[in-house]
Amino acid sequence: MTFARRLEDLVAARESQIVLGLDPDPVRLWPQALEAVPDTGSAAERAATAVAAHCAALIDGAGAACVAVKPQLACFERLGAAGWSALAATVAHAREAGLLVIADGKRGDIDVSAAAYAQALVGSTPTPFGDAPGLGADAFTANPLLGGDSLHPLVAGARAADAGVFILVRTSNPGAADVEDLQLAGGGRERVWERLARIVAGLAGPGDGLSEIAAVVGATAPEHVARMRELMPRAPFLLPGIGAQGGRVEDLAPAFVVGRAGGLISASRSIARAHETAGGSPADAARAEAERLRAVAWSLG
Amino acid sequence: MTFARRLEDLVAARESQIVLGLDPDPVRLWPQALEAVPDTGSAAERAATAVAAHCAALIDGAGAACVAVKPQLACFERLGAAGWSALAATVAHAREAGLLVIADGKRGDIDVSAAAYAQALVGSTPTPFGDAPGLGADAFTANPLLGGDSLHPLVAGARAADAGVFILVRTSNPGAADVEDLQLAGGGRERVWERLARIVAGLAGPGDGLSEIAAVVGATAPEHVARMRELMPRAPFLLPGIGAQGGRVEDLAPAFVVGRAGGLISASRSIARAHETAGGSPADAARAEAERLRAVAWSLG
Repeated sequence: MTFARRLEDLVAARESQIVLGLDPDPVRLWPQALEAVPDTGSAAERAATAVAAHCAALIDGAGAACVAVKPQLACFERLGAAGWSALAATVAHAREAGLLVIADGKRGDIDVSAAAYAQALVGSTPTPFGDAPGLGADAFTANPLLGGDSLHPLVAGARAADAGVFILVRTSNPGAADVEDLQLAGGGRERVWERLARIVAGLAGPGDGLSEIAAVVGATAPEHVARMRELMPRAPFLLPGIGAQGGRVEDLAPAFVVGRAGGLISASRSIARAHETAGGSPADAARAEAERLRAVAWSLG
Repeated sequence: MTFARRLEDLVAARESQIVLGLDPDPVRLWPQALEAVPDTGSAAERAATAVAAHCAALIDGAGAACVAVKPQLACFERLGAAGWSALAATVAHAREAGLLVIADGKRGDIDVSAAAYAQALVGSTPTPFGDAPGLGADAFTANPLLGGDSLHPLVAGARAADAGVFILVRTSNPGAADVEDLQLAGGGRERVWERLARIVAGLAGPGDGLSEIAAVVGATAPEHVARMRELMPRAPFLLPGIGAQGGRVEDLAPAFVVGRAGGLISASRSIARAHETAGGSPADAARAEAERLRAVAWSLG
């Protein structure tokens, strides 16, 4: 079953469009995560054990209100091989909890390197010793700066694995003004992000229903969401920037005109650190905040 | 000592501007690499052992004619945690051989995620169990699509580690036309890549001598190299695209007007697979091709 269909089915079944961002910082883990750590091993190995325990507890706490998790690869890679093992364990835990996995690495490269990223995240790699499985994610994020031929191997690898690709179109940070918002020459007053949106739409192709080619659309620029939907009628939107970055769920209604799965609300710190403002146990506070976001988003769909 | 100074010193000492690209494909490794593989373990673990042996042999063969290696992270990540261990072993082997290491992952993200990539590649990560060391690279490649505030944490992390950052400005693939070559509105007929070059120059700041803020400039567009140098007077250029992608060393002379370390020639398959056309042992053919490139580039400087 394609990623788009799995996503639609799961959004309907769980009545949720919330994507739980996982960006664990070893010095800001939930206290219970540290209890699982053995006394031996390198700092990276011990921290990776704690990171995996933290992510598992966060999934156990808030996962029921979510449709997917979005591990931030940088936060695992910084612990080296042990971190990559923690990432694999986190992906497995999320899948056991019935959640989709969107690997957030924002990869972008050319030719065989792009194909290798698809193998790493959603495919597998032929070796003389048999196929080496990749991370087994359901989808991954990608950076389109290098152009169409850098995206084709990612899209081909995703399609072969029935996976999805979330291509950056307009991100949620102020620096988006530096490149993504630049206006292009020509009469259309088109901006770079609109050109990126056209590339996404071209990869998705014509047809009905959501495509497996998706877009990252920062929730901090809600004035663009309607235009994004016009340019990319079939793309699921991943909408980061809610909470800590200032975006509001209420501003995103245009994303949902193609159905509830057309807009996925990503939140990480506002859920993982909810207890810091709300009090109570980390798991209870995370569950309550995820459920609050879920209910607000669902009311818009 | 800063990355720029280390680079200049090593280029002078080795009389080389050649960067040995390492993009190992488990089904196209040198035969000797397979001999080191144990009979037990998963496909990924066994392939990772072979990949590390291949990269070590390639470094032993061609490294003497080079100034740096450039491991392509995707090719290691596709083997999971075992692949990351092979990457770490390859970095260590290159450093023992006196080579600089440029980690080629083309990372780009915002805020704490960008900071985490810097920790992963050139820094270290604080944990409750002590600092977890990163990969220990001398420099890394970065994608600027997300704008200045996505680059600042990478640059800060690099500067804290006396490392360098190679920012993508204009890549060597045909798809560079899709986004990087777009013309911007305004009277200057400026292209996106020229704006990216200005961002690089701004990060480098004023001053004399090469900066630790560097640029990736595809060798397949030699007509742009002089303009790149004008826009980024202090940036070392990493020039991929020689050989397999059609670029010619002879076309790159404008890169070297700031000194020999101002233009680094990256080549991977043309060296690793030289024996397929030249015959002889893989190591001998790689050494000969790297030496040929070295001599041609040095004659331009």
